[in-house]
This record gives sequence, structure tokens and C-alpha cells, in this order.
Amino acid sequence: MRIRLTDLAERLGVPLHGDGSIEITGVAGIREAQPGELTFLGHPKYEVFLASTRASAIIMTGLPPGRTVPILESPHPYLTFLQALKLFAEDRLGIVPGIHPTAVVSASATLGDGVSIGPHVVVGDQSHLGDRVVLMAGAFVGGDVSVGAESLVYPNAVIREGTRIGQRVIIHSGAVIGDDGFGFTRDGETIRKIPQIGNVEIGDDVEIGANSTIDRATTGTTRIGRGTRIDNLVMVAHNVEIGENSILCAQVGISGSAKVGRDVTLAGQVGLVGHIDVGDRVRVGAQGGVTKSIPADTEVSGYPALPHGQARRIYASMRHLPDMIRLVRELARRLDALEAKRGEGGEQG
Amino acid sequence: MRIRLTDLAERLGVPLHGDGSIEITGVAGIREAQPGELTFLGHPKYEVFLASTRASAIIMTGLPPGRTVPILESPHPYLTFLQALKLFAEDRLGIVPGIHPTAVVSASATLGDGVSIGPHVVVGDQSHLGDRVVLMAGAFVGGDVSVGAESLVYPNAVIREGTRIGQRVIIHSGAVIGDDGFGFTRDGETIRKIPQIGNVEIGDDVEIGANSTIDRATTGTTRIGRGTRIDNLVMVAHNVEIGENSILCAQVGISGSAKVGRDVTLAGQVGLVGHIDVGDRVRVGAQGGVTKSIPADTEVSGYPALPHGQARRIYASMRHLPDMIRLVRELARRLDALEAKRGEGGEQG
Amino acid sequence: MRIRLTDLAERLGVPLHGDGSIEITGVAGIREAQPGELTFLGHPKYEVFLASTRASAIIMTGLPPGRTVPILESPHPYLTFLQALKLFAEDRLGIVPGIHPTAVVSASATLGDGVSIGPHVVVGDQSHLGDRVVLMAGAFVGGDVSVGAESLVYPNAVIREGTRIGQRVIIHSGAVIGDDGFGFTRDGETIRKIPQIGNVEIGDDVEIGANSTIDRATTGTTRIGRGTRIDNLVMVAHNVEIGENSILCAQVGISGSAKVGRDVTLAGQVGLVGHIDVGDRVRVGAQGGVTKSIPADTEVSGYPALPHGQARRIYASMRHLPDMIRLVRELARRLDALEAKRGEGGEQG
Repeated sequence: MRIRLTDLAERLGVPLHGDGSIEITGVAGIREAQPGELTFLGHPKYEVFLASTRASAIIMTGLPPGRTVPILESPHPYLTFLQALKLFAEDRLGIVPGIHPTAVVSASATLGDGVSIGPHVVVGDQSHLGDRVVLMAGAFVGGDVSVGAESLVYPNAVIREGTRIGQRVIIHSGAVIGDDGFGFTRDGETIRKIPQIGNVEIGDDVEIGANSTIDRATTGTTRIGRGTRIDNLVMVAHNVEIGENSILCAQVGISGSAKVGRDVTLAGQVGLVGHIDVGDRVRVGAQGGVTKSIPADTEVSGYPALPHGQARRIYASMRHLPDMIRLVRELARRLDALEAKRGEGGEQG
Repeated sequence: MRIRLTDLAERLGVPLHGDGSIEITGVAGIREAQPGELTFLGHPKYEVFLASTRASAIIMTGLPPGRTVPILESPHPYLTFLQALKLFAEDRLGIVPGIHPTAVVSASATLGDGVSIGPHVVVGDQSHLGDRVVLMAGAFVGGDVSVGAESLVYPNAVIREGTRIGQRVIIHSGAVIGDDGFGFTRDGETIRKIPQIGNVEIGDDVEIGANSTIDRATTGTTRIGRGTRIDNLVMVAHNVEIGENSILCAQVGISGSAKVGRDVTLAGQVGLVGHIDVGDRVRVGAQGGVTKSIPADTEVSGYPALPHGQARRIYASMRHLPDMIRLVRELARRLDALEAKRGEGGEQG
Repeated sequence: MRIRLTDLAERLGVPLHGDGSIEITGVAGIREAQPGELTFLGHPKYEVFLASTRASAIIMTGLPPGRTVPILESPHPYLTFLQALKLFAEDRLGIVPGIHPTAVVSASATLGDGVSIGPHVVVGDQSHLGDRVVLMAGAFVGGDVSVGAESLVYPNAVIREGTRIGQRVIIHSGAVIGDDGFGFTRDGETIRKIPQIGNVEIGDDVEIGANSTIDRATTGTTRIGRGTRIDNLVMVAHNVEIGENSILCAQVGISGSAKVGRDVTLAGQVGLVGHIDVGDRVRVGAQGGVTKSIPADTEVSGYPALPHGQARRIYASMRHLPDMIRLVRELARRLDALEAKRGEGGEQG
């Protein structure tokens, strides 16, 4: 992408001081930036680099004395920089508004303004895409799905029938939203599937990682709260409810009907059994196995997960275990001997 | 879906008592059901709700005294209810018999009656689809594949060449069946791939979860027994054999050439090393790490997996470990002191 | 595939002794081979089967006395056999050179000789495919991607914009290369995404398993070294660097910015925390949780991962823990008693 600085300032919504005719081709840190790139000054300790940076424009609060390059003035330079990064990243996706001729969009689907539907996409009956929704190549959207404005679905992601997706949601490639929950009932020798007729609801500003799976509810709804971020290869089972602004790292697994609060952090490969309640702001350490409910504001780790301090002491103690067992056996022998002597002494006495 | 009760009774194969002209639009529990919905009475304790339910029809055994709504009579009301659920769930998939014009089906493929092949599906040379097989959008079926009657393949699933799939099998989105096993041989400095020329066979009534992967055998066949249910993000490696009616929960990993019996349950995130034998009806607790063969009818858990009772005692004991280590050190000091005194005593004696 | 032995010898680059007109239809071990199949003699202990094998041709070093079937002479019979296996395995993929009419290939993409682009494939702007690259059905290649010669991308894999892929790389179905890293910054109550503008580079001869995900770097590059083999459902986070010829088994997870050396083996379900350094030739046992850097040539296992011998002793000791705790409590009681008596004895003395 090449964009004139005037236009970039306008898209970022910040005032420009200086020559707006130069073209910006990328963004980078203040020390790494090359001519043609935009950078930012986010912390006073980087002010020393103002003189030496090769950047063609700087986002900062206020204006530097004796400046030589154009300034984009922002009260939050880092956030404005993130916005600029986003523009350049999205540009590289090559998104073109409109419906690609190879896409198959139901006549009963309704589309907002400026949607982009890529090659080989499918959109089912009665589904609705909000304004500026992007469905990249090979994405599948089943019937009766709603996708909120400015959401972005990457190639080959699958959104099954009945799913509700908020605004500005990002769904990465290969993610599957709304596949059947894993529900069965034994009928003598055979196992019968319990049809899963609920759905999935995903709040605004959620991100779902590549190849993650969010199962539809048996009945009712599996819910992902607004602002929650889910990494790759995560499993969220049927009827799970996750609060707002929680973070689920890669390969986490949450079993059916578990409730997870808001601002929770589950580190990589954590597993939760079903039907438990994990309170707000809980943190679970990597590979932790959570086997029962956890009150709010608790940090746990290990298998089975225990309060983090306790778990640390236990795992540290384990290193001493082989020596300790040897010592205990030795103590037992010495105590035997002492008791025997004492017995002899007693008999002698 | 709107279906007249007469037609619904016929599709469910049960006798109808009452007005067959009403239209049913959904199914629900006896307390939740709304007008237009079908419910069921599966247990006498719910009989109290017969009078108050708002459902428009009820599946039950026998007829209630003074009934006001039509009854579908069934010796197994819950199973009939599951059938009805299945009808409504499948209806929401929007499956249309026939071959979508964007699908690419080999001229040498053979198709049974009533198959449904969705947009952008590919079916390879010499493959066979049984009657009423459904391949949803973007599904890939390689060459020389056989898919049994009434199997359902969800969007963007991949079935590689040579795979054999039974009847009524369900394969969820993003699942990959028959990808290469992970086999290499070291040749001095370099690693060489061992081409994987075996295949995968999947029995009748199996379900494979979203984004799970079932590797083809190096030579021979990776087998999933009839009725086995596999959840999402599960890995089954090359040459594994799994018996009938086993249940593999999400994110389970089974290494190469392991044999898993029938009616086995592997809870979430369980891992099995390769070349072991897990007997019939074995149960492995969540996150368990199975490092050797397990006899039939055993329940194990933990890492490394041990009989469940033993594992529980060990994990319960671990909580006492830090205190225990302090106590042992104290005992050692006290014993030292006692022995020293005893020594003094001996010298004095 | 049916191939005349003369032609097969030529493709394998080895001399043929005997009748080149026979047709070969498959490959198998010396005891299993049927008429029409090619086998090999890789070790003298199998020489006894030379007389009885039903194979129609044999790959071996030198010529047997009194041979009756044609011989393909090779200094490395097993490697030549692997090559033959590869030919037959690839043949079953049904790869056809050329661009399928349903594929959507950017006019600005550049294609080498003999590429094969399957149905519903997408290739983005400015991307380059080397000679004989194969993109199977439904594969997505974003803009500004480079794929080296003879690389093979299986159905429905996704390669996002900016990725660099070496020669002879194999990417299995559902794998996602170059999806966004998982990077956020807290801004008061809300979590903001840090756009991920780096890329992924994959060396020659790498294999990436089905449904694995390799995240693009935040800035800079996530790197997979030449010859490294990655199994299914593996997660490699942003800015990770992996050396050459390493092996990552299924469901491994590597957190952001971790560095993994060459010839490393990570067994199934291993997890690595971020920002650590795992040295060359390190081996981590299945389900191991690596929480800090590991020097080269070390074998570790368990959670938290410890040197393998130590971990084994600890896990073996754990089995004695419940008994040990009982014993320690008994010892404490006996010591109390002994001290009490000693006290009495002292008073008596």
C-alpha cells in the first residue's frame, strides 16, 4: 500500500503538521523505520531517537522542537500507531468489495453496505451480513446466520447454521463455529446421538484463532462474551459460557456447560472439566487441569489445578521426593535400632 | 421447518392419536415447549407437566386420561423424540438433493440415489457415494474413496484417497481423514519421509469431530470401529485400531500403532504413546498420559497414568508433600539428637 | 498406476537387469509382495526370502545367484524403494498438471513449469509458484506468497499473505500457515489487538501436518528450519524459530518467541512456554511442560520438565508417596514416644 500522508491522517482521524503529499508505504518502530515509513513516539525515553530516526513521519503527542519530518498529532500515539498497522495489514489481504462471481450466496441472504465476499464462499438462506463484513475465499456461512458489521472471516473458516456473530469479530482460517456438541445417550448396546439444536453467540470484538472449534449448544446457546480472544486449536464445548475480555491461549479445552468468567486468562493447553464455574479474573497456568470450580481472583496451576503458590511448593518439593524417600527409610531403620536398644536397656534396667 | 403432524408421525414411524392437521415447527422439553412445538414424556415424574405443557403434541407411551393435545404413541418416547430432533436439525442444514453446478465430480465416480453434493465439493476418480450421502460445501473426497449410505460430511472436511467410510457416518467440518501418517527414517544427516500408502477404514455410525485428523496407515489400514464417537481436535495416528462404541473426547491424541478396545472412554486431552494395547471398557481420566498397555475394565488417570484409585491417593498425598518434607527433616534432626544422647549415655554407662 | 519396469527404472535412476516389459502395479515388502509388485532386499537377513518372494522385481545391491526375476540394482535399496513408494503414492493423488477452470489465480501471480492447480484453489496477487508445485483442491494462497519448486499443498490448506515456502515442502490439509499471532495490549478496560505484520518462512523439505497452525510474526519472521517435520494439530506461535531437522509430534504447542534448535524432538502434546531457548538435539517426552530454557543435548520430561532420569525417579517415587506419608506420621509418633521415655529416663537419672 502507498498512501499519501494527508489521506492517512484522515483515515486515522488525527491532525497532520507538515507536508501531506509524501507517500507512506509502511510502519515500523522508531529505530527500525526506513524512509517512506511511519513511526511513533510512545514514551519519553525514546525521544533521543527523534533526531536520528529515518522515518518519513511520526505519530506523537505535541510537536518536537525543530522538527524536520511531518507529525501526526495524537493523545495516544501507540493506539494511533496500532490503527495504522491495522490499515497496512488489512491492505495486504487484498480485500475487494463486492461478491466474487464464484461465490454462492443465497437469494434470501441480506447483505449490508460494502461487504466483500471472496471466491468460493457460500452464504446460506436467510443469513445476514452487516456493513463492511469480509468473507474471504472458501469461507462457509450456513443458513440463518448473522454476522455483525466489520467482522472479518478468513479463508476456509466455517460458520454453521443459526450462529450469531457480533461486530468487528475476527474468525481465522479453519475455525469451525457452531459444529455439533458431543452429546450421546446409551441405549443398551448402542450409543445414540443427541441432536444438537442450540446455537453459538459471539459478542462484539471477539477473535477466534485458526482451527479452533466452538460447539453449538445441545439446546440453548454457547456464548463467547464481548472482547474475548481465543487463540488457535482451542476447543469450546457445547453450552459453555465465557464472559467478556477473557483470553484463551492455544490448545485450551473447555468441557461442556462450564462457565468461565470475565477477564479470565487460560494459558496454553489448559483443560477444564465440564459443569464447573471459573470466576472472574481467574488465571490458570499452562497445561493446568481444572477439575472443580474456582473462585474469582484466584491463580491456579498444575494437575489437578491448585492455588498457584501451593502448586509451586508442591512441584518444587517433588524434586526432593526420591531423596526424601531414601531418608525416611533410613530414619525408620535408625528408629528401629534405637527402639531395640531402648528395649534392651529397658530389660537391662 | 413446518410439518403437518400426520406427516411427522409417518416419518417417525409411530401411530398418531388426534388432529393430524396441525403444523409442528420445532421440538422442546415438556416445560419449555411453546405452541407449535412437539415434546415428549419420558419418565413418570414429568407426568405432572402433562396438564400445563403448552406443546402442541406429545410423544409418550400409552394415552393420558383426558388428553387435550394429539399424542404420538411410542414404546420409547425419548428415542422417538431424538428422531424428531434429528429431522428438525437436518432440515436447518438446508440440504438439497442433487449436484450443485459448482461441484467438480469425476466422471468415473458412482453416486447412489438421492445424494446431495454441495457447492465447490470435489469428488475424485473411481469414488463411490452410497444412497442419500450428503457432502456439504467445500468438502473434498479424493480418488478411490467409498462413502456408505446416509453418511453426512460437513463443509470443508477432507477425505483423502483410498478411504473407506461406512453407513450413517458423520464427519464434521475441517476434519481430515486419511492424511499421511508421520513416518520418517534417518539417512545420515537427513530425514527421509516414508511414503504412507495404507488407508483409513471407518465403521458404520461413527462420528468424527471438527478439525480432528485420522492418519492413513503406513501400509495396511487405520481402523475406527463401528459406533465409535470422536470429538473435535482429536489426533489418531497411523495404523491405530479403535474398537466399537468407544468415545474419544476433545483433543485426545493416540500415537502410531496403538490398539484401543471397544467401549473405551478417553476423556479430554488424554495422550497415548504408540504400540500399546488399551483393553475393552478402559476409562482414562482427563489429561491422562498413558505410557503402557492397560488391561480391560480398568480406570486410570494422571501422568503417567495409574489405576484411578491409586492416582487419586497420590495426587491427594502431593498436597501434603511440602509439609511432609519439613517434618522428615525435623524428625531427622530429632533422631540425630536422640542418637547423640544415646551415644553419650553409652559412654557414661 | 501401471508402469513398465523399464520406465520405472528410469524414473528411479537405477540400472535394470532383466525383462523391462513387465508392468509393475504396486510396491510391498519381500514377504507380502504379490505378482505385479516391486520389492527390495535391504538387509542380508532377508536373503532367505529371495527364492520364495512372489514379487515381479527386486531392488537390491548386486545380483543374486540364479535369479529368476528382474533386478533393479541400487547401492541403497531401501532409499530406492522409498522413491518407488513415493511415485505410487503420488500417482494415487490424481494430480493433473495445469490450472483447473474453477481455480481463481491472480493475473499478477507467476507460475513455474508444470504446476498443478486444482479445483477451487485461490492464488493471490504477486504470488509465485515454483516449477511442479501442486496446489490441491480448495487450497488458498494469499498475496505475495512464494512457494518453492516441487512443493505439495493438500486440499483446503491455507497459506496467508507474505509467506515464504521452500522447495519440496509438504503442507497437509487444513494446515494454516501465516495466520495472525496472538498479540494484544490492554488499554484500560479493553483489550486491543496488535496487528501482526510479520510473516512465516519455511525451509526446504519441511512437512507440516494436517490442521497445524504456524502463526505469522508480530514483526519480523516466524521460521521453520529446513528438513523439520511437524505432525498434525501442532501450534507454532508468532516469532518462534525452529532449527533444521527437528521433529514436532502431534498436538505440540510452542509459545511466542521460543527458540528451538536443530535435531530437536518434541513428543506428542508437549508444551513450551514463550521466550525460552531449547538447545540442539534436546528431546522432550510426551506431554512434557517446558517452563524454562534447556541446554543442548538434554532429554527432559514431565511437568515441569526436568532431566529425564530425574523425572523418572520422581514419578517412580510418587507411587510410594501415600505409604511414605503414613510411615512418616508413624515415625513421628514413635519418635515422640521415644523422646518422652528418654525425658522420663532423664528425670529418673
